Amino acid sequence: MLIRLTVPTRRREALEEITDRVAQAVRSTGVSEGVCFVIVPHTTAGVTLNEAADPAVTADTINHLAEMVPREGFWIHAEGNSDAHVKTSLYGNSVAVAIEASELVLGTWQGIFLSEFDGPRPRTVLVKVIAG
Amino acid sequence: MLIRLTVPTRRREALEEITDRVAQAVRSTGVSEGVCFVIVPHTTAGVTLNEAADPAVTADTINHLAEMVPREGFWIHAEGNSDAHVKTSLYGNSVAVAIEASELVLGTWQGIFLSEFDGPRPRTVLVKVIAG
Amino acid sequence: MLIRLTVPTRRREALEEITDRVAQAVRSTGVSEGVCFVIVPHTTAGVTLNEAADPAVTADTINHLAEMVPREGFWIHAEGNSDAHVKTSLYGNSVAVAIEASELVLGTWQGIFLSEFDGPRPRTVLVKVIAG
Repeated sequence: MLIRLTVPTRRREALEEITDRVAQAVRSTGVSEGVCFVIVPHTTAGVTLNEAADPAVTADTINHLAEMVPREGFWIHAEGNSDAHVKTSLYGNSVAVAIEASELVLGTWQGIFLSEFDGPRPRTVLVKVIAG
Repeated sequence: MLIRLTVPTRRREALEEITDRVAQAVRSTGVSEGVCFVIVPHTTAGVTLNEAADPAVTADTINHLAEMVPREGFWIHAEGNSDAHVKTSLYGNSVAVAIEASELVLGTWQGIFLSEFDGPRPRTVLVKVIAG
Repeated sequence: MLIRLTVPTRRREALEEITDRVAQAVRSTGVSEGVCFVIVPHTTAGVTLNEAADPAVTADTINHLAEMVPREGFWIHAEGNSDAHVKTSLYGNSVAVAIEASELVLGTWQGIFLSEFDGPRPRTVLVKVIAG
């Protein structure tokens, strides 16, 4: 079963935590052991794992990415969001998280974040669980 | 079954779209629900998902990566392709795409691209489908 | 079965090769065909595939990442390791490697590396094999 979540994002660039929603989706499948794939079917938003405890980490991440891939530049693509396309490929469109006893196996500090680079807007997140 | 595709690349740095070939490989497996992994077993080429509609996006991507990771620099590795190794790790060697009704579940704008960073040459792409 | 490896890292920033340990973990599962996921449940260390033949490649990688994401900077997060968090998201927390005849399907030059960005310390690596 492929589970679709809709995640609203709050700013042009934002890391929106979705850990609890993914954990709940995993439980709803009844799968106790396997791998959970969180997949974002967009080209200006991706998904990443990072620290969920201190919001300063997500702020630092967004600021530094904006420095590495500036919004203004010699971009050919005319929609003003080439930076978002580049960041999406750098961060990637999926993460894999192990499942044990029906729960996500995450590190102490890890959370799952939709990484928005051209919002705000509602985004789709796919959760697919493979038993094994 | 592990499917091997050979993908010729056209320039030193190029994003070569392989969406249709991957979709056909998935159909050939007869799997209707699951996850498709596209895996590139090289160290100077990877794979990414990004916009397939406007070729300016791939041009912007290649140009910006060349700025972030210049070919010329204080590289120790003597083969002149250290930039390609770094870019490959930044972009990654695999993508995961959900499968529903025997088709890839891709966003409206998404395509699958072999990301060549040290071509042109023929590259191997592995397609592995897991049912579930 | 989820296999847990402990990998000691030797410096603050290091790529520690774990190919043989992962290959052995895969063999221990008895799975002959499928996909192996190598997952790092940390927020300042990840995992990547890259060249295992010439150590200059890993040195170039570490040096260049330090240039792209400097340790010193206008970071808000107060622990002095914001660079490590950003690098981890750029490199990613998991890799997927196909399995054929009970062996990892890796390219000639490919090795699996724990990518340490805030060591030295012991790190956990999860190996999960899905048959299929």
